Amino acid sequence: MTPIYLDYNATTPVLPAVLDAMLPFLRAEFGNPSSAHAFGRRAKDAVGTARAQVATLIGAAPDEIVFTSGGTEASNLAIRGTAHRGTGKLPIVTSNIEHPATDAPCELLAQQGYPLKRIKARPDGIIDIDEAAAAIRAGAGLVTIIHAQNEIGTLQPVAEVAALAHEQGALIHVDAAQSVGKVRVDVKSMGVDLLSIAGHKLYAPKGVGALYIRRGVALEPLLRGAGQESGRRPGTENVPYLVGLGEACRLAAVRLQDGRHEIESLANELLDRLRREVPGIVLVGHATERLANTLNILFPGVSGRQLLEACPRVLASTGSACHADREEASSILRALDIPEEQALGAVRLSLGVPTTRQDVEEAASALAAAWRMITGNSASVAKRSTAPV
Amino acid sequence: MTPIYLDYNATTPVLPAVLDAMLPFLRAEFGNPSSAHAFGRRAKDAVGTARAQVATLIGAAPDEIVFTSGGTEASNLAIRGTAHRGTGKLPIVTSNIEHPATDAPCELLAQQGYPLKRIKARPDGIIDIDEAAAAIRAGAGLVTIIHAQNEIGTLQPVAEVAALAHEQGALIHVDAAQSVGKVRVDVKSMGVDLLSIAGHKLYAPKGVGALYIRRGVALEPLLRGAGQESGRRPGTENVPYLVGLGEACRLAAVRLQDGRHEIESLANELLDRLRREVPGIVLVGHATERLANTLNILFPGVSGRQLLEACPRVLASTGSACHADREEASSILRALDIPEEQALGAVRLSLGVPTTRQDVEEAASALAAAWRMITGNSASVAKRSTAPV
Repeated sequence: MTPIYLDYNATTPVLPAVLDAMLPFLRAEFGNPSSAHAFGRRAKDAVGTARAQVATLIGAAPDEIVFTSGGTEASNLAIRGTAHRGTGKLPIVTSNIEHPATDAPCELLAQQGYPLKRIKARPDGIIDIDEAAAAIRAGAGLVTIIHAQNEIGTLQPVAEVAALAHEQGALIHVDAAQSVGKVRVDVKSMGVDLLSIAGHKLYAPKGVGALYIRRGVALEPLLRGAGQESGRRPGTENVPYLVGLGEACRLAAVRLQDGRHEIESLANELLDRLRREVPGIVLVGHATERLANTLNILFPGVSGRQLLEACPRVLASTGSACHADREEASSILRALDIPEEQALGAVRLSLGVPTTRQDVEEAASALAAAWRMITGNSASVAKRSTAPV
Repeated sequence: MTPIYLDYNATTPVLPAVLDAMLPFLRAEFGNPSSAHAFGRRAKDAVGTARAQVATLIGAAPDEIVFTSGGTEASNLAIRGTAHRGTGKLPIVTSNIEHPATDAPCELLAQQGYPLKRIKARPDGIIDIDEAAAAIRAGAGLVTIIHAQNEIGTLQPVAEVAALAHEQGALIHVDAAQSVGKVRVDVKSMGVDLLSIAGHKLYAPKGVGALYIRRGVALEPLLRGAGQESGRRPGTENVPYLVGLGEACRLAAVRLQDGRHEIESLANELLDRLRREVPGIVLVGHATERLANTLNILFPGVSGRQLLEACPRVLASTGSACHADREEASSILRALDIPEEQALGAVRLSLGVPTTRQDVEEAASALAAAWRMITGNSASVAKRSTAPV
C-alpha cells in the first residue's frame, strides 16, 4: 500500500515546477554570482529574480530580503542581529509556544544577560494579548512571536503585537516559517520589522530560507566573511535553491490569489470522518484562527506514537519525544495546560498541495481502524455512538 | 564561440553523477530526517551515508563531521565555536593570506578583545614557519591557517603549524575549502583539530559544506535551535545537498586514488603556451608547493581586468576589486609584497575536472591575442622573442 503523507508541516516535497526552475542552475548555469564574467552575471541575475519573487509574496522590496540557509538561520540572524540596540540589554519578549529556532536564540541571549519574558498562550493556542501588552509595556527592545504555530497551526495576532512593540520603540520579529505560502502574509499590513521564511515548508528545498529586514532596521550579521547579501550574510550564494525558493514563492502567490484552496475542505473532511469514527477526539487550538491544513488531534485512550506505529501507512507526527524510556508529551501542548495523559494522545495531521480526497478518506479509515485495534472498540460501537448526533 | 571556463577555484559545476545521486532526494525521497516515519528514516539514512563518505575522504570518523551551509559557515563555526576556551581570551594566530571566511571571524574576535596575530607569508605565498613558531610560542589558544590559498594555490605547511599549535596546547583549524578533492587531505596525518570543507569547490553544489571536529574538541554551536547534527548545528538537514556532497567526496577519493590527474599536465601546458606567447609573464607563488590546477599569472603591461574584458571567451578571475573609480590589486598579492602595478596584471586561471586540452590551447591563444592587442605587440615579435630560448 502506498503511504499517505500527512506531515507537510514537517517538510514539503519540492514541487515539480520548482525543481524544473532549479535544474538549469544545477547543470550548465553554475556560475558564482561574485564572478565578473558571463557565467557569474547570469547567476547574479537569477538571484536577483528570486529575491524579487520572495519579496513580492510578502509585500516587501527586494532589498529587504536576505537569503539564508533556512528558517533557523533566519530567526537566529533576526533575533541575535538586532537584540543589541542602543545602550544596555533591553528585554526580549517572546511566547511560550515558539519553535526552537526562536526559543534557543532567546535562551542564549538570556544567558548573556538579556531579560527574557515569555507570554503565555491561552488553552486555545493563541497568546493572551493582554498579557502581551503588559509584558511589552513593561519594557522591551525586541519582541519575537511565531505567526502560525507549527504543531497546532494557530495564528497569532502579530499585527496587534507589532503595534504594541512599536508603541514601545521595540522591534518585532515574526517566525513565519509555517504561514508563508499557506495564508496571506504581508509585512506592511502586519507592520513587522523582521520575518523568517523557510523554503522547505512551502515546496522549495530544505536548506534555504530568507529573512525580511525592513528598510532602515540595523542588523548585525551573524556569519562573517565576504560581502554577499549586501554584507548581511556572507558565503557563496546557493543559486539553485534561491531560484527554487523564488519559484515556490511565485507559485504560492498564485495559489493564494486563487482564493481558498481545496486543502481546507480536505482537512474538514478528514476531521469530520475522524470525529464520526473515533468518539471523543479533540482538535487542539482555536477553531478558526488557524492554518486550514493543520489538525492537531488528541486521540483518547492511546498515545499518538502508539497509534501511528499501528498505522504505518499514514505518515504524520506526534509532538512527543522519547526521554530515556519515558514518552513525554509535546512541550507546546503542555504549554497550553493540556494534561499530560491527554497530550500524549496527540497526532498532528498536516495536509499539503498534493493531498487528495482519496488520501483523506483512506487515512481516516486507517487511523480509526488502528485506534479501534488498540483500544478494543468495535467499529459498530464507535459508529453508533456518534451517528445520531 | 563557446566560453572556456577556467574559474574552477571560484566555483565548480555539479558533476552529473553528483546530480544523479541528489535527484531522488529532490523528488520522491523528500522526508525530514527528524520524522519518525518511513520517509524520515530514509532521509536520515541518506544523511548518514553522506556523512560517512565525507569522513572517508579526509580520514575522519563520521561522528567528527558536522554539515553546514558552506565553507563560510564551517570556518565561522570552527573559529568562533572554539576561541573561547578556558579562562580569559587566549590569542588567535592566523596568516595574512586567509580567505575572508577566516579573516572576518578573526577580526570579530579581535574586536571582542582576543589578541590577534597574523603570520606573514613569504613572497612565494607560503607562510614563514619561523615566524609562525615565534607567534604561536608567544602564546596561542587557536591557530587558523588556510591549506591551499584560493587565489594563488600555494599549500601551507599545516602539519608543521599543527605540531606547533599542539605544543602550546592550542587548537588548530584549517580552511581546506580549496584543497579537499584536489590534493590528499588526511586530518590525522595533518594533525588538525578542525577543518573546513566547501561543497562547491569540489563538484557538489553551492550552499553546502562540512566541518571536521576532532573527537574530544568542545565546540560551542553558532546557530541555536533544535538538536540536529548532535546539537552542533540546528536546522532541517539539506538532504539533497548532503547526499551530493557525500557523492562528490566519494568521487574525489576515486580521482585521488587514480594518482596524478590530467589537470596537472593541462595546467603545465597552459603555462608553457602562455610563456611562449607572452614574454615576461610571472607565475605567482611557490613552484611546487601548490595546487596543480591554479595558475595565478601576472601579465606585463596590462591589468588583469582589462585583459579578461578583451578576452570574453575565457572565463577567469582577477583578485582585484573596484573601489570607487580605482582598481585595486588583490589584497593577497599585496600581502606578498608584489608591487601594485605588477599585481594589477594578475589573472587567476584555475582548471577543473571538465577541462580539456582544447580548452587550454584555445584559452592560451585567446589570452595571448588579447594581450598583444592591448599592448600593441605583434604576434611575430612576441614569438620571436621567446622561440629560441
